[in-house]
Amino acid sequence: MAAWWSWGERPARVQAEASRILTDLERTWGPLPSNVDVRVALPRSQPEVVQQLREAVGAVSVHDEAEARMRHAIGQSYPELLDARRGTLRHAPLAVVMPTLGEHITATLKAVRPLGLAVLPYGGGTSVTGGVAGPDDPYIVLSLRGMRALRRVDRASLVATVDAGMNGTELEAALAKEGVTLGHYPQSFERSTVGGWVATRSVGQFSTGVGSIAELVAGLRAISPTGDIVLPAQPAASEGIDLRELLLGSEGRCAVITEATLRVRPRPEEQRVAAWRCASFAEGAEVIRALLQEGVAPELVRLSDDVESAMLGVPSGALLLIGAEGTANDVASMAERVGAVIGTRASPLDAPLAARWYETRFDAPFLRDALIERDVIADSLETAALWSDLMELYVKTRGAIARALDPGGRTIVLCHVSHAYATGASLYFTFLAPGGDDALARWTAAKRAALDAIVANGGVVSHHHGVGRDHREWLAKRYGNATRIVDAIAAAFDPTRMLAANRAGPVRTMPAAAR
Amino acid sequence: MAAWWSWGERPARVQAEASRILTDLERTWGPLPSNVDVRVALPRSQPEVVQQLREAVGAVSVHDEAEARMRHAIGQSYPELLDARRGTLRHAPLAVVMPTLGEHITATLKAVRPLGLAVLPYGGGTSVTGGVAGPDDPYIVLSLRGMRALRRVDRASLVATVDAGMNGTELEAALAKEGVTLGHYPQSFERSTVGGWVATRSVGQFSTGVGSIAELVAGLRAISPTGDIVLPAQPAASEGIDLRELLLGSEGRCAVITEATLRVRPRPEEQRVAAWRCASFAEGAEVIRALLQEGVAPELVRLSDDVESAMLGVPSGALLLIGAEGTANDVASMAERVGAVIGTRASPLDAPLAARWYETRFDAPFLRDALIERDVIADSLETAALWSDLMELYVKTRGAIARALDPGGRTIVLCHVSHAYATGASLYFTFLAPGGDDALARWTAAKRAALDAIVANGGVVSHHHGVGRDHREWLAKRYGNATRIVDAIAAAFDPTRMLAANRAGPVRTMPAAAR
Repeated sequence: MAAWWSWGERPARVQAEASRILTDLERTWGPLPSNVDVRVALPRSQPEVVQQLREAVGAVSVHDEAEARMRHAIGQSYPELLDARRGTLRHAPLAVVMPTLGEHITATLKAVRPLGLAVLPYGGGTSVTGGVAGPDDPYIVLSLRGMRALRRVDRASLVATVDAGMNGTELEAALAKEGVTLGHYPQSFERSTVGGWVATRSVGQFSTGVGSIAELVAGLRAISPTGDIVLPAQPAASEGIDLRELLLGSEGRCAVITEATLRVRPRPEEQRVAAWRCASFAEGAEVIRALLQEGVAPELVRLSDDVESAMLGVPSGALLLIGAEGTANDVASMAERVGAVIGTRASPLDAPLAARWYETRFDAPFLRDALIERDVIADSLETAALWSDLMELYVKTRGAIARALDPGGRTIVLCHVSHAYATGASLYFTFLAPGGDDALARWTAAKRAALDAIVANGGVVSHHHGVGRDHREWLAKRYGNATRIVDAIAAAFDPTRMLAANRAGPVRTMPAAAR
Repeated sequence: MAAWWSWGERPARVQAEASRILTDLERTWGPLPSNVDVRVALPRSQPEVVQQLREAVGAVSVHDEAEARMRHAIGQSYPELLDARRGTLRHAPLAVVMPTLGEHITATLKAVRPLGLAVLPYGGGTSVTGGVAGPDDPYIVLSLRGMRALRRVDRASLVATVDAGMNGTELEAALAKEGVTLGHYPQSFERSTVGGWVATRSVGQFSTGVGSIAELVAGLRAISPTGDIVLPAQPAASEGIDLRELLLGSEGRCAVITEATLRVRPRPEEQRVAAWRCASFAEGAEVIRALLQEGVAPELVRLSDDVESAMLGVPSGALLLIGAEGTANDVASMAERVGAVIGTRASPLDAPLAARWYETRFDAPFLRDALIERDVIADSLETAALWSDLMELYVKTRGAIARALDPGGRTIVLCHVSHAYATGASLYFTFLAPGGDDALARWTAAKRAALDAIVANGGVVSHHHGVGRDHREWLAKRYGNATRIVDAIAAAFDPTRMLAANRAGPVRTMPAAAR
């Protein structure tokens, strides 16, 4: 059985790929430790408080078994996974409440107030930025996974109303029965939920064409400590500050998102990915810029730098993946438009390369587990910037990570453009280095160095992973005074700081001295 | 010379069109009063306060001549224009401050605090919803029209940084010299400013393809009573609540917007509008829905109902205008895609009809002046809704306006779809009725009835005119409790309510009894 903290049962292809990578790494780094099973110490339970909570919420399920508490104690940031492997969970919920109705949530918020507990809304638990890290105060998790129905599909308007607790797999399966699709595929697709997508302004792999979740939200419902928020679905409005934008990216600080009405489309007849080889990463970026600035926006645009391209089977130059979906006509017409812009600036590669990426597109979290098991530091971070800043940002961030993660020079940094716009693009960095007793300190140094480089070179703090607890310092560095307005918004929704994200808690990116 | 309160010097074609319409109206309604020149009484000046202000702001221009105060006392809502015609301006600024640098704005905000004056940022003054109506307290206008330079164009990223005080004509002229365009054409284009567009989430006539100003903003700078806000240009981000969204739609409640970095495109080689005839308004709406839902989004999509179509020269059925711009290739390819979706569901109309709309596309405000001069109530309001609600919303809103504006049945209501989306569309109503002593009361009744019908039938309070003072009541009706969060945001930016929009002031849509 998969470890409780892992992404899940590993497919055979991932196991094989992991073995291949680990063999390669051991050739360069020397032997890596083998996997050791660990027993995790949970912060102590408080059965009397849980009993009071149970009485107050009545019919709502409340779980305080160790298994439920452990599973909801962490997200997927590297320090959290490391803690789980080292047997020290510093924070864990006293209990996991599992509402199946909106009124359960209202009842729960009412019940925790006199008990002095904080509440942490939890969907798929896939945050890699400390977005589901518990506060220092006693808290409960409010799992949205009990709410996962497709409520209705408005075919005339092409919108679907869905519960916030549905994960990607469940959502697309339910929509498929209705002949429609959302087409939002973050790498965490199989576990992350609609509510989590909205709360973090998530972006999917096929979002260059379709747009981020922010562009797919037509309406929202949420329950805040100060009342219900009902934002009916609408195509567009000039109604002052857009209230939807106060929940999009709210990251658990404003309200529990319970329902979203999302733009859907007819299910695509085809989804096709083609692979191209560009002379270099910089030249590939120019090709993408040309595409987007000429209004050619395929659903998927992904360009790997030379190191990543080599790992993906392109020994020199940069691997460019272009994917389209829709009717057979749409896909053919997009291929033609892409080909016209690319011209001779890239050469087509064999189909199996693209097919392989497509088949393994949700595998990275499994692979990461396999590496962390062997004490490899394995993590990623991402940013975005204007085209005029992009290559400088790439070089500086890459260098900062490599130097800080392993002064001995053993860091491997991969990078790809994951999403593109007419104005700029994202950069997604993956980094690997051998672990050891100082793994956390080196990870912290690398993350700090990367974020400092990003902010100094015009990059956004995150393109699609969110702020969480770990990125707040750099949000303040990038926006200064303006971030206090977000605190004021959180305070207006949650004046007593009932929501966990509004309480003090662990920030793993702080220098060790300040922690 | 044009009257001070008018849109400006009227082109000859407008004068001719106005005569034609007025003759038609008189045939049905009987004789309309002829134009009378009025002398306006301004609220008293306070030279000593203005003197203190002048000393405090130093080099910044301060105007307190009657002309400057009058011109900045009103926007373009019907009640404001009526007041100007009837010689009673209830509110006027004590002075108009005209900064040419950001530091002038900071100095002005600092100077007015001890004088207890409110500050009203003013761009083109084109709000039709009481967005530039002064507060009940003494106030000054901060005109942004002293700041109107194109700062820089980043060609690689296709973004241009511009001063907030530039109006549409100035902006496009400056961009044209650089070979690029913004392509944002609200009907107020010739007078409204970049800052006003951002503050109201403005939408242009060619926005069905390009998107609203919210989608064109990459970065912003603003000066709030509690400090500067600098939001660097970026393609996309997941950085929590999007700070740009706190200025977009802020309508003078948060900060003085001073600069925007906007997405631009190469100047189009061609801009082409084609006219079609649909069997009915409902059938035309279905054609537009098919276009947008098949991913065919021409820059301009405009569909008139039967009454408006008749006025525009199409005696039966509904006039559909479809416009595209770009390279000759783009325009031809869009025409082909549009034709393929439309098939036999609409028939092409003669080119002069489309050409005439294009030539007169910014004329409506001039025409309105000519009608108001003859005591015709002439106004418009707009909304948007999902496709599944649209036709019911149309019928209900139209009926509500007609009944309330003139119980005698003389109201003329025209409507068009001005913007379309895959999920729904906007409805833009224009209404005319004879005036008289009770004109304001009847206008108020019609506006209230329309907004009640809109909110009851799933429409947004405004699609592109904004909230202003006049729509706030319905924002609260539509969103309830959630609107208090916007008040909290305004309070965080402006805790002492220095900005005029955060003070009590005239709300012309309140029932007379409550006013």
